[in-house]
Amino acid sequence: MSSTFGSLFKVTTFGESHSKGVGAVVDGCPSNLSLCEADIQKQLDRRKPGQSRLTTQRKEADQVTILSGVENNLTLGTPIGMIILNQDQRPEDYNHVSEIPRPSHGDYTYQMKYGIRAASGGGRASARETTGRVAAGAVAEIYLSRAFGVEIVAWVSAVGTITAPDPDVQAVSREGVDESLVRCPDFETSVKMVEAIEEVKSENDSLGGIITCVCRNVPAGWGEPVFDKAEAKLAQAMLSIPAAKGFEIGSGFTGTRMRGSAHNDRFVQKGDRLGTLTNFSGGIQAGITNGEPVVFNVAFKPTATIGTPQDTADFAGNIVSLAGKGRHDPCVLPRAVPIVEAMAAMVLADLALIQETRK
Amino acid sequence: MSSTFGSLFKVTTFGESHSKGVGAVVDGCPSNLSLCEADIQKQLDRRKPGQSRLTTQRKEADQVTILSGVENNLTLGTPIGMIILNQDQRPEDYNHVSEIPRPSHGDYTYQMKYGIRAASGGGRASARETTGRVAAGAVAEIYLSRAFGVEIVAWVSAVGTITAPDPDVQAVSREGVDESLVRCPDFETSVKMVEAIEEVKSENDSLGGIITCVCRNVPAGWGEPVFDKAEAKLAQAMLSIPAAKGFEIGSGFTGTRMRGSAHNDRFVQKGDRLGTLTNFSGGIQAGITNGEPVVFNVAFKPTATIGTPQDTADFAGNIVSLAGKGRHDPCVLPRAVPIVEAMAAMVLADLALIQETRK
Amino acid sequence: MSSTFGSLFKVTTFGESHSKGVGAVVDGCPSNLSLCEADIQKQLDRRKPGQSRLTTQRKEADQVTILSGVENNLTLGTPIGMIILNQDQRPEDYNHVSEIPRPSHGDYTYQMKYGIRAASGGGRASARETTGRVAAGAVAEIYLSRAFGVEIVAWVSAVGTITAPDPDVQAVSREGVDESLVRCPDFETSVKMVEAIEEVKSENDSLGGIITCVCRNVPAGWGEPVFDKAEAKLAQAMLSIPAAKGFEIGSGFTGTRMRGSAHNDRFVQKGDRLGTLTNFSGGIQAGITNGEPVVFNVAFKPTATIGTPQDTADFAGNIVSLAGKGRHDPCVLPRAVPIVEAMAAMVLADLALIQETRK
Amino acid sequence: MSSTFGSLFKVTTFGESHSKGVGAVVDGCPSNLSLCEADIQKQLDRRKPGQSRLTTQRKEADQVTILSGVENNLTLGTPIGMIILNQDQRPEDYNHVSEIPRPSHGDYTYQMKYGIRAASGGGRASARETTGRVAAGAVAEIYLSRAFGVEIVAWVSAVGTITAPDPDVQAVSREGVDESLVRCPDFETSVKMVEAIEEVKSENDSLGGIITCVCRNVPAGWGEPVFDKAEAKLAQAMLSIPAAKGFEIGSGFTGTRMRGSAHNDRFVQKGDRLGTLTNFSGGIQAGITNGEPVVFNVAFKPTATIGTPQDTADFAGNIVSLAGKGRHDPCVLPRAVPIVEAMAAMVLADLALIQETRK
Repeated sequence: MSSTFGSLFKVTTFGESHSKGVGAVVDGCPSNLSLCEADIQKQLDRRKPGQSRLTTQRKEADQVTILSGVENNLTLGTPIGMIILNQDQRPEDYNHVSEIPRPSHGDYTYQMKYGIRAASGGGRASARETTGRVAAGAVAEIYLSRAFGVEIVAWVSAVGTITAPDPDVQAVSREGVDESLVRCPDFETSVKMVEAIEEVKSENDSLGGIITCVCRNVPAGWGEPVFDKAEAKLAQAMLSIPAAKGFEIGSGFTGTRMRGSAHNDRFVQKGDRLGTLTNFSGGIQAGITNGEPVVFNVAFKPTATIGTPQDTADFAGNIVSLAGKGRHDPCVLPRAVPIVEAMAAMVLADLALIQETRK
Repeated sequence: MSSTFGSLFKVTTFGESHSKGVGAVVDGCPSNLSLCEADIQKQLDRRKPGQSRLTTQRKEADQVTILSGVENNLTLGTPIGMIILNQDQRPEDYNHVSEIPRPSHGDYTYQMKYGIRAASGGGRASARETTGRVAAGAVAEIYLSRAFGVEIVAWVSAVGTITAPDPDVQAVSREGVDESLVRCPDFETSVKMVEAIEEVKSENDSLGGIITCVCRNVPAGWGEPVFDKAEAKLAQAMLSIPAAKGFEIGSGFTGTRMRGSAHNDRFVQKGDRLGTLTNFSGGIQAGITNGEPVVFNVAFKPTATIGTPQDTADFAGNIVSLAGKGRHDPCVLPRAVPIVEAMAAMVLADLALIQETRK
Repeated sequence: MSSTFGSLFKVTTFGESHSKGVGAVVDGCPSNLSLCEADIQKQLDRRKPGQSRLTTQRKEADQVTILSGVENNLTLGTPIGMIILNQDQRPEDYNHVSEIPRPSHGDYTYQMKYGIRAASGGGRASARETTGRVAAGAVAEIYLSRAFGVEIVAWVSAVGTITAPDPDVQAVSREGVDESLVRCPDFETSVKMVEAIEEVKSENDSLGGIITCVCRNVPAGWGEPVFDKAEAKLAQAMLSIPAAKGFEIGSGFTGTRMRGSAHNDRFVQKGDRLGTLTNFSGGIQAGITNGEPVVFNVAFKPTATIGTPQDTADFAGNIVSLAGKGRHDPCVLPRAVPIVEAMAAMVLADLALIQETRK
Repeated sequence: MSSTFGSLFKVTTFGESHSKGVGAVVDGCPSNLSLCEADIQKQLDRRKPGQSRLTTQRKEADQVTILSGVENNLTLGTPIGMIILNQDQRPEDYNHVSEIPRPSHGDYTYQMKYGIRAASGGGRASARETTGRVAAGAVAEIYLSRAFGVEIVAWVSAVGTITAPDPDVQAVSREGVDESLVRCPDFETSVKMVEAIEEVKSENDSLGGIITCVCRNVPAGWGEPVFDKAEAKLAQAMLSIPAAKGFEIGSGFTGTRMRGSAHNDRFVQKGDRLGTLTNFSGGIQAGITNGEPVVFNVAFKPTATIGTPQDTADFAGNIVSLAGKGRHDPCVLPRAVPIVEAMAAMVLADLALIQETRK
């Protein structure tokens, strides 16, 4: 169950950080959608390593090949197999960690779970696994965009203690987000974030932060009551991203400090539908979208791999000093933006298809 | 998909707030476990309405009947059907809302999804649905407790702006939690929380807050990489609870403000296993439990149904004044404590069974 | 996974032969369907014991109660919980088998699987479990009938060595089938079948046979390629019925003896669609329905419980003589007819909903 | 759902007959199993085209590449991605069928389902899709063999009207089966089958037949009650194979003509377990394996693509004469033998893992 997501728009990913390749199979994508590799590449390029001085310098072109499910640039309704070959493999970077589980990494837990683990670079726990997700998410986005006009935009809203002011959720765009190296659409904040990241980088340390995401033009009625509420599936999707530590929909943790009379989203007529005056609900009520923008935050911890030596135990229990040598991001957030968008798209595409059966 | 949770420890719930009954079917529970109705009733009693002056006065005994799957107090390995009949139905309380979707409720979204909705009391969106979850969770807990010694304890850590100090997660107990009406184990804070709730109640308003939960004695190795990470399934489970708005594992949103060098959980030998010096990871690394206590927070919004009149639109778009008349909790948190525990138990039981296949 | 069937029209059953009750939860049924208990009762009455001199004399009214998911005779889109209480429990009939696994029954295999089994009457392996299926199937049929005009009719086409001529699959009706005690629509054959069953009954023995089923007005396009082909899901559904031993779609085993030139179903225009001149495909090509009637056969073994003493081993390995004392059917086929129809309906309803997502 | 099979040993296949490649992702395979490409290649070679004068002359090396999930010839517990590139693509062979749906093929039904279909060679409905299954089944077999000593052997037991005598199910081996071009272990029958196939080939016609399969050393206790009975999952698996039309477990359709007193499999002590004197049950009772060999038959229709011209309608309803030009097998059975084995292995591996959770 671990590597498949979704019940109707079903995505299965495969691949380790240093295996021959990573990829995804998307099953259940509607037929007759126009789709080509360039559509997918665009998001892969936003996720790929080495795209700026703020990111890991591992060199990967992350070029996607569509193996099946598409003919003459049209989806056939059959599984879309996609593969991205791994190129820049440096297993020797990881020799030093084979006997020492890296703190706050998956080395120890994978070993406890499977009795074995990939010899280098995090294997399946590596962020490299998310390549397949971004490819699959790009397919989901194309469906959502063509069929419903859905737009999904995520951005970095906090890096460490630096917090950006809220943008206009109706206007924020990927182009605007990408104007900054850190993918924060507020220019001033963006400058501070870059400085902060360069500072920790120079100190062999790392930072975390928050990504905010808005999904616009989501029709009312998506999401299932009870266990598969829209916010529940989004929460699962976001917490499944490496380094994610928290999720909040709409008012989230802040809303817990408000009173009901202030927090309730009162209805008003908006064009030909009911809308709400405020959006503390984050576009979802009782698990089902209400037609307002879906807005949520995802918390990311500071990168666990750091160059600073740390005292920690090896598998035998001896205290040793460990400093990360692999290439890594001092702050994962800029590259996590397309991953958040991809996971949001996968959730919404699945809920959209389920809702097709409710009519 | 909406009403079934889990892949091996599979729970299906049914029932509306004013249908003949609510209940659950638990499929996949291991055989030969000692189980009787009293085991389940204990948690149902902690969730049931009318248990204190802080909760709704709807009268429901919430008496569970086991229909199948258990013989001579032993589980057979077959589906455990459980039913709780609804007793105190007052549909007339809800006549006034039939044309007016209550703000921040499911009335509007259910109507948009299904083209129909239960005439009264929230139907499936009502917290009454969680009765079946608590029954199912009690079964999960018995399995986890007998087979692994797992202990799950949740408590109210914040009500509105009142925040409790962290208890000792190794020592906090349900008995200690239940000493206070609000289920906050810190006596002083508890008194303030009760006062705050009584104040908003007298003002026909409501409060939200935060529930914290610890799961002790969870072995290392539970949780699946990628989409079904332990924290991802917990996030889904928690966000599926009515009124839940946020989830964070371990350091969560606070951890985003730390540096990696401070945030990393360094390993040390603990008895015959490796443990960590700190637990910012919340007991889970790369989606898999590491043997430390699993600790997480869940944010709950203030109750949407309030006695204070609010201007809002009816289905036709006309602005009307609406005041809630149904019986409701001014603060859902005390009764949500066993629901959080139930959902945590369902997640862990499922991951435990999956891990049995990995050995 | 054992007790849930379907991915979108999802049915979960529960209950043992001598538990408090048996039942089903149907999740995913479309909303706004007119549905009442009488709709369901009709098929339960065709399955219930004691309906004729050819069946077991266990007395069960098999009266269904809808617990949830329906209000004012309309489905809400939420889970439909249904329960049938067990009444005529005679566990003492089964005391003699507690140490002796009945040949060709589930006693031995349940014990090997679970290390425990229901003390009496087959528990979950009893045909009594199918009560919940018939209730769920009746709901599926209502959806199929209202939304698509689908008609499902099954009948007994062979009892032991007595085989009925093929009826007109376009005309055969449940009313016609029910005119005979054995549910064989050919009068002459029916008389012979009744005689054969009464003969084996008087000799404390039993007979098997074949049930044929036609599903009319199934649109082209239902069924998934690869693993969830329409015929594959039907095969699973039919082989999941107690005592079923075989399944064939269209020409089945007989077709293996033909040449391709004779077996191919050539296309012709039929009204506004393409149809086929012959129907060796049984209405399904490459896993997907083609608009022709779906026709299949299900083989049932002779009832395992017989009054004739048989030498067999007890759990300790000692050879003992065992004769069945419980009430049982000398031939299960007449009562299995509505079960076959129910399972067919569950499969088709699920495929219909999936196809709604393909448009 | 269409392209994923299994709940714990989960196989997803992808690829069309003329896409860049076909393949499979196996998720849930236990870790620390020794596995290399040669293990998988062995079965692929038995399925590949052009292996004898009896099969299609399409040239495909069918060389498998393991992309992920295996390191140093050991499984990691993570998804095993496998790909087989398509080489000998001749889309021009199929130009003539683009407007004419081939009788008893998937052309018409795919078009009705998806509103589009692969331009050539059957796309996903082609037997080429089974390449991924055979690769995945080979992985399943390695698990079953190493962990339980399970042996799976299938053979051709009938071609057209020629039927082979039953071999000793305890002794029949793949080596013995492969001694004959048609994979029938009885030498004399094998000669007749080869003659029959060559005869229809020369007449541009085709034959069907029956494959029998035995699974030895399957422990008692595998298989789930109710919907996922071992025979039900086998039935689904077998009917999901292209051209399969029927399935029977143990006595199957023949058993319907017997009386219960003759058909019951009476227990006797066999070594340290109970066994049965006869095996009409085919190794499965009430859905759960009993420790006896699992034996079943699968019916295959005569190949639909034949060189003989046939009158049939094109999509516009005009009657035209169509003769198959693509390369095809006059009888699919010899190459279907490893596919039957693969599907049996996938079913058993999944049931084995589920049973690990029942202990």
